[in-house]
Amino acid sequence: MQYQNDLILRAARGEAVERTPVWLMRQAGRILPEYRAVREKLSGFIELCTTPALAAEVTIQPVDILGVDAAIIFSDILVIPEAMGLPYEMQESKGPFFPKVITSAADIDALLATDAADHLTYVYDAIELAVKELNGRVPLIGFAGAPFTILAYMIEGQGSKTFSKARRFLYTEPVLAHRLLEKITLATIAYLKRQVQAGAAMYQIFDSWAGVLPPDQYREFSLRYIKQICEAVPQVPRTVFSKGAFFVREDFNNFPCETVGLDWNMDIGESKKIIGPHKTLQGNMDPCALYLSEEQIRVKAKEMLDAFGTQSHIANLGHGLYPDTDKTKVKCFVDAVKEFGVKK
Amino acid sequence: MQYQNDLILRAARGEAVERTPVWLMRQAGRILPEYRAVREKLSGFIELCTTPALAAEVTIQPVDILGVDAAIIFSDILVIPEAMGLPYEMQESKGPFFPKVITSAADIDALLATDAADHLTYVYDAIELAVKELNGRVPLIGFAGAPFTILAYMIEGQGSKTFSKARRFLYTEPVLAHRLLEKITLATIAYLKRQVQAGAAMYQIFDSWAGVLPPDQYREFSLRYIKQICEAVPQVPRTVFSKGAFFVREDFNNFPCETVGLDWNMDIGESKKIIGPHKTLQGNMDPCALYLSEEQIRVKAKEMLDAFGTQSHIANLGHGLYPDTDKTKVKCFVDAVKEFGVKK
Repeated sequence: MQYQNDLILRAARGEAVERTPVWLMRQAGRILPEYRAVREKLSGFIELCTTPALAAEVTIQPVDILGVDAAIIFSDILVIPEAMGLPYEMQESKGPFFPKVITSAADIDALLATDAADHLTYVYDAIELAVKELNGRVPLIGFAGAPFTILAYMIEGQGSKTFSKARRFLYTEPVLAHRLLEKITLATIAYLKRQVQAGAAMYQIFDSWAGVLPPDQYREFSLRYIKQICEAVPQVPRTVFSKGAFFVREDFNNFPCETVGLDWNMDIGESKKIIGPHKTLQGNMDPCALYLSEEQIRVKAKEMLDAFGTQSHIANLGHGLYPDTDKTKVKCFVDAVKEFGVKK
Repeated sequence: MQYQNDLILRAARGEAVERTPVWLMRQAGRILPEYRAVREKLSGFIELCTTPALAAEVTIQPVDILGVDAAIIFSDILVIPEAMGLPYEMQESKGPFFPKVITSAADIDALLATDAADHLTYVYDAIELAVKELNGRVPLIGFAGAPFTILAYMIEGQGSKTFSKARRFLYTEPVLAHRLLEKITLATIAYLKRQVQAGAAMYQIFDSWAGVLPPDQYREFSLRYIKQICEAVPQVPRTVFSKGAFFVREDFNNFPCETVGLDWNMDIGESKKIIGPHKTLQGNMDPCALYLSEEQIRVKAKEMLDAFGTQSHIANLGHGLYPDTDKTKVKCFVDAVKEFGVKK
């Protein structure tokens, strides 16, 4: 497809760009009054995810309203466990909840693997609709959760400060853990392939709970499965965002992905040195910095761009937008990147 | 005072020891049936903290039952905000809750600083009782929260996944944040001095939420206040445990403390290189590894000791014990350190 604006794809591939592209994790969401207007008419988050016309509508909102250089399909990483056979509920203030969790080999055997992807046509339909509606203005990003993060929810049944149940499972049931991770990996590969077929021009793997594992376990139970996914779906640029996993940055030096996401704890200069010049880096302003004044946000955005310097870079935050962030502040950040990110 | 076992003090000072000393964060707590027996008779956690005879009793339990090389006074980091003027409640399943939080300059001005330490005589009494009862068997460790972690609770009013309210406060009200941190620092200095006078032979500063800040903010809003405390109370060995703050390990190279705590995310070899040979390191087995079999725990403990090698080392976990850990597994870890930690 020909894009009017393909900055993000070129930056991901390490090609020259006129200016740094910018998008934001959770850009389609509660920070936009236009999103809340759509959302309020529905029974909840899950109805929005599973209704392609509405999911496509909120996917495009930040392109229109914030002027970002990419759309990201409105969905949730937890559609994969649901499609595999573990449905979830989304409780407004408490987050996701799984009435049934994985406790045995039989539970794992009962899950779908590759075939799970057949149950997610509402996502592919939403992607097709959004891509059609975008009409080449900007690329659309697909995404999935990393297998370890999905396993963590499947074992815990909900978010957790320590994820100690999931981590206990890795220690005490490593064979079952690998069997479960392999199934999630197969489902995710099929899912991302279908997203690409539907029109996703790149994709991101979110390992939201990477930071709870020790380095050796992270390599054994998470990174190898992310690698398997990236190798199986190489058709479009791949971004890996292992939040909190500062300890495996060196592994990304030689990893089958184009872009590595940094969180706001990771020093930019140090990360450039560790990950090396051949990867595009994405991130990493602290989402809390958007509580500053517009003038200060511009200073912070410029500092971030200066720190990334000549490294291939996709501007973003170091984590998703917080829901109470003022829309005008988000727009200010996007505009600042567009102003200060122009290449000389 | 003369101790029958002063391994931990000598290790903290970087002196030669016959074997690696060992203790565990949260060793006095729910993992011991003997603790639960005391706790069940009371109205709650706070009654136990504020009753010196009982606090001293549970402080000593792990020395008797687990054979650790130090006691740590049974208390909570949140006694400081309470003594400064912000009382907290401890809700069994949800953790601490502050009915009143800090929202303005007037709120900060109303707090006690140095004088707050006068309201914590129950802690000093408990230390005196425990030290008397221990009768020189092992040293007793005092402790306090780092000012940033205390500020985080004072602003949020409870635990949080992101601590975004507290972080917002640092960004938008830096002058007030520093004013509050200075007051907490003064209170903490007076508090630790009194703990030392009461018999604490060393102390640890817990910065439990260090990991939520970007490096520059961590240096500005946390590390400088920890430094101020360490410089003001140099009479006994000082341990700093900044959980999650992998990004400031280099700063500890030249920091006014004897021991640096590592969490289980931090690679031991890398941390030794970054922090340097002149600090004692404490940690850092994953608390979840105690869900393994006894045989496997012994292997893990030996691997940890081998990785610390000739560096001065105090064995511990990389975080507090999880409440559902089996007491016999904890004892197994302690015994393994005693067996494999013998110096040739």
